[in-house]
Formats: sequence, structure tokens, C-alpha cells
Amino acid sequence: MSTKPKLFSPGPVDVAKETYEAMCSPAIGHRGKDFEELYASVQPGLQEVAKTTRPVFLNTASAWGAMEGAIRNLTQKKVLNLCCGAFSDKWYDVSLRCGKEADKVQVEWGEAITPELVREKLSEGGFDTVTLAHNETSTGVLNPLADIVKAIREFDDIMIVVDTVSSFSAVPTPFDELGVDVLLCGVQKALALPPGLSLMIVSEAALERCKKLPDRGYYFDYNEFEKNHLKNNTPSTPAIPQIYALRERVDFMLSEGLEKRYARHAATNALTHGWVAKHGFENFAPKGYQSKTLTCVKNNLEIDVPGFIKAVRAKHNLLINGGYGKIKGLTFRISNMGNETLETQQELLDALDDVIPDFL
Amino acid sequence: MSTKPKLFSPGPVDVAKETYEAMCSPAIGHRGKDFEELYASVQPGLQEVAKTTRPVFLNTASAWGAMEGAIRNLTQKKVLNLCCGAFSDKWYDVSLRCGKEADKVQVEWGEAITPELVREKLSEGGFDTVTLAHNETSTGVLNPLADIVKAIREFDDIMIVVDTVSSFSAVPTPFDELGVDVLLCGVQKALALPPGLSLMIVSEAALERCKKLPDRGYYFDYNEFEKNHLKNNTPSTPAIPQIYALRERVDFMLSEGLEKRYARHAATNALTHGWVAKHGFENFAPKGYQSKTLTCVKNNLEIDVPGFIKAVRAKHNLLINGGYGKIKGLTFRISNMGNETLETQQELLDALDDVIPDFL
Repeated sequence: MSTKPKLFSPGPVDVAKETYEAMCSPAIGHRGKDFEELYASVQPGLQEVAKTTRPVFLNTASAWGAMEGAIRNLTQKKVLNLCCGAFSDKWYDVSLRCGKEADKVQVEWGEAITPELVREKLSEGGFDTVTLAHNETSTGVLNPLADIVKAIREFDDIMIVVDTVSSFSAVPTPFDELGVDVLLCGVQKALALPPGLSLMIVSEAALERCKKLPDRGYYFDYNEFEKNHLKNNTPSTPAIPQIYALRERVDFMLSEGLEKRYARHAATNALTHGWVAKHGFENFAPKGYQSKTLTCVKNNLEIDVPGFIKAVRAKHNLLINGGYGKIKGLTFRISNMGNETLETQQELLDALDDVIPDFL
Repeated sequence: MSTKPKLFSPGPVDVAKETYEAMCSPAIGHRGKDFEELYASVQPGLQEVAKTTRPVFLNTASAWGAMEGAIRNLTQKKVLNLCCGAFSDKWYDVSLRCGKEADKVQVEWGEAITPELVREKLSEGGFDTVTLAHNETSTGVLNPLADIVKAIREFDDIMIVVDTVSSFSAVPTPFDELGVDVLLCGVQKALALPPGLSLMIVSEAALERCKKLPDRGYYFDYNEFEKNHLKNNTPSTPAIPQIYALRERVDFMLSEGLEKRYARHAATNALTHGWVAKHGFENFAPKGYQSKTLTCVKNNLEIDVPGFIKAVRAKHNLLINGGYGKIKGLTFRISNMGNETLETQQELLDALDDVIPDFL
């Protein structure tokens, strides 16, 4: 088997040996006690991570499935998509493709969504759903979630959907306290699982809203997830390997302790920011709105980004990531998601130090 | 780790050690050469199994996602769901939940769909899509696919969607020769992978049809799959572990040889039928329409089915399956899908022989 580079890209990330081992637990049927036990075993831990008493639905699809599902379950009148990068921008497009009326707040890539912008747009009226990417993975911007939620709550009957794809478990996203309606994430980013599963937490209000949408379909239907959850099961055949892996990582998170986990991400992130400053690069995201799980580096020194990434891979078998979409070449991204420690993050930065002189 | 029973249930089935090993291949990013190579590597083999020149889309969802997707991509006027058991019946329900106009041909569970019934219904007019479960997993009925397709083709502009969830690779389903529009299957049945992925083959005509449906969404959009296929990629983050496993099983199938694979399934199926007859049980499916991958046994001897299954599991660590839905208790199911050989199937039947006297 060829040796693939260790991933420091913002998802999928490096997967621990123990996670792979868990993934290979024996095949079980999904309509019986074996699966019910597995399903039930991950709930308390996931609820603790999300700080919620609501169930955490296990969705056999990557996060775009959960994102489309949110629109189909909730948008009756019009959805407002808060757009600040490749992934949040795309959600607007997906809303339209679901046949929904949609409008957006659009800021420049690299900027954050502000409560003021949201308030201004919602004042136009007619919206019943808002979508937000908490941590925009393409730009490394961490949006001010709690403040935005407060602004939205000044308006009535609006469902708040938050994509925490690259923040869940690495920074606090307390579902009940925030009072959002849907929180969703993939598992191949901060959770450090192999891809193929997403998580969805759905408020009671969202559950009630979905029942009013007769064309919401089956596969992502919140009501089906809720009904099956009560039997410790999922509506459709679940990605059992990823759920085994999830159990292993949830146990790991709880044994690490959530506060320590947040602190670890903050520390590896700060270390990476130090590397950026040392070489005279800049952070693409503004101060106060910088992601804790990935660093989007502005290529202000105009290095050959693809060449740099290739050289790091060739010499050290480590993979960082070029910019995404329209900021490809203008930025590059270094992840500190998942299992990285100060030591392993330093190993990456040492490797970057080793290679960068050839590109300056 | 507890020892789980070997699965002889009609999906998920037992997974080979080599498949698990492949699943644990190193994490790779999905927007780069490593994934493109993996994606491209499975196409020729899958196309050979499906006997098609069309691409085989890799859908990160279980088969119900692909089934809902077919409705959302294709049904503009009205869908006809051909219903003959739990799964094909449910497709009608799913069609309605997608907000589509739908009607059905319904036969008794245990009976097959006939071309005559299909022709009669389509004569009413107004349909633009038909769905069929090739092998209805709940009843063990194998529907006469080619004859039904011929009957449908007497009518114009109808998209034919075939669920081959529990038949694909175990019996021939030659996509191009049959001239169907969508063929879909999960991977945890005849393909003997862990669950979490489905396959979709889509005709040129279906691809053209989907472009006319503005609310078809994103996650299952055929046009997105086609566009990404041309770059050896998928629209959303794929279930990479299952795709690694798929590559391993595709290689296995081709090294086994398709004709031999069909013959192996026919032989293990016949062996199981022999066991059924020997004990005076009957086959739930009528002669001429019996599945080659699972045997749905009619409980005409009125044994305690749950007790029997439990005893086989307790004494031999092997798991067969009770009936599904409304025929639970009235039937039980024995799978010969996936990797089973005459020898391993005989091991199961010996175990059943050992336990059955206590229940007769």
C-alpha cells in the first residue's frame, strides 16, 4: 500500500489508528438490538459535546445532505442565506435548487457576518429560515454565532440553521443555550472521523415546523429521524462503520475533557498563527473573527502556492491545502483540527520552515 | 470486543477481512489526485458488472437516498410505483412525500409484478416515471425485469428506475441491454460492503430529463454527479472508506469472474431451497419468481420464529432474519448474498438442522 501524506487540510483530516480499528468492528444488522445498543451508546456523549438535551440524529450523508435537508424541512416562505465564503455562498444556490424562495446577505470573502447586516436584511420581512456557517472553512472566518442568533431572535418565527462543520467539538457550540433550531456538521473535520456521516440536532420547534412541509421527502425528514430515535435507530440503513468510529472518538473526547479539548485547539491554532507572523504572512480572516481550527493564510508574499504544497508533500509527506474556489493561489490553509497536539502541529510547522526558504 | 454473530440476514451481510483492511487505507483528501485515482479505479470494474458504458455514480447515502433522488430528478408529471413488498410499497409513500403525484400497481406480498399489470396501469396515461424493485428483499420475489421493461417501453417518455439493492452483481442486470434509465443499489447486500454508500447508473435520457426539474435539489442531482464524474469526483464529500472497500470487492468480483459469481449465488440459493423443502417448509415466493440471493421461508409449520432465530444465534453465533413488516413471524429469511460459498452456506444449514428439531 502506498504511503499517503498525513493530512493537515481542513477536512478530511488525519484519522487515529484507534478510530480505524473501531470502524472495523464486526458487521451487525441495523434492525436489532446490536445496532440499538451502538446508537444509544453515542447519544449521551454527543449531547454533552453539543450541550443539549435533544437527540443527535445520525445522518448517512455528508454535510451537504444535512444542509439540503434543513431547507427542505424548514423553509415554507423564504430562506435567508448568510454568505461569506465558498460553502456558505453555495447554500444560497442549494436553497434555490430546492425550489425555495431565497435571498442572501453577502459579505466579501474573508469578512465576517455581522448582527447588524442580518438585522437589516430581516427587517425587509418575509423570511422564515436563516442559514449560517459558523466557521467558514474556505476563508477561516469564525462568525459571531451568539450575537447573530440574538439579532435573528428579534424577529418572529424564524428557524436558525447553523453549519458547524469545522467547529463542532473544537469550540463550544452549546445548542440549548444558543437557542438555535438546527445544528449540523460532518464528521471528517473537527471530529476526525473518516467521511460518510453527518450529525443533525433539531429543536422541538423545528420538528413542529417540518410537519407542515408536505414535500420535505423521506431521506432527511426530521420527523422520521425523531420517530426512529425513540427506538434508538435511524430511518434508513446507517453507515455503521462511521458510527463505530464515532463511538470511539466520542469516548476519546470525553476522556480528554471538553475544556482541555477547546484549549488544545486554541493552542495549536495560536502556534500556527505564530508561524504565519514569523514569515511575514498575514491571516486572511480579520482579528476577532479567526477560526480556531484552521488558518487561512493570505499569500501576501506571493509565493508559488501549488509548488510549496507539492514540495512539503514530497519532502515531508505532509499535506496542507491550497485556497478554495476563487481564492485558490491567493491563500493557503493549514488545519489544526482533530487529533493534533502542540507536538504534532510543531512537526508540521518545522516541515514548513524547512521548505519555505525555497519559495520566498 | 464482543463476538457478534456472522450475518446471514439479507443485508447488511458478512464483510470479508480483506474488505475491512481496504476500508482502513490512509485518509486522503477528496479534492485532489489521490481521490481522483481511487474514483477512476473502480469505474471500469463497476461498468463491467453493470454491463454499461455509462458512469457509475458513487452516492454517499444509503439506497433510500438514491430512491428519493430518482423521484426528485425525474418525476415531472406522475410516477407509477410497482409495489410488491415492504420496500417497493414504501417507494410509493416516498414519492408522495417528495410532493409528487403518484399511483401504484399493488400485488399481494409474495407475488410478482407482471408485465400485464404494468401495461394495464400505464394505459390510463399521465405517467412519466416507473419504479421497480428488481428483487424485493422483504418477500424474496425476483420480478421479471426484462419483460416489465419491454411492457413499459410500449409507452412514450417514461423513465424506468430499477432498485437492484439485493440483486446487483449476484444476477445479471445489464444496464445498456435492458435499456432502463436508472439502476441503483446499496452496497451492503450482494456487494458485501459495510453500509454507507449507494450506486446510481443514469441514462443519457434521464440526465436530460433531470435538467428540466428546477427543484431537484443538489445532494442527489444527477447533473452534479455527471459534471463531477468527468473530473473523477463526486459533488459532495464522499464516504472514502466505503469506496476503498468497494475497490477491493470489485477487484474480487472480477477475479472471481461474473459468470462464476452468478453460478455461485445460484448454487448456494439452491442449497438453501433444499433445506427449506427437506423440513417441509415452503418458499414464500412462487416458482419462477424466486430470488437468487435470499430465501423468504413461509412459516407454514408455524414454528416460533423469534425463538428459532435466537437459538441459532445463541448456539452457533449465526444470524438469520425474521420476516419484515407485516409478514414478521409468518416468514423468516436466509441470505446467501455476498461472499458465501457452498461450504459456508452448508455450515449455516447444518446449524439450522441442529436447532430446528426443538421447534418442530
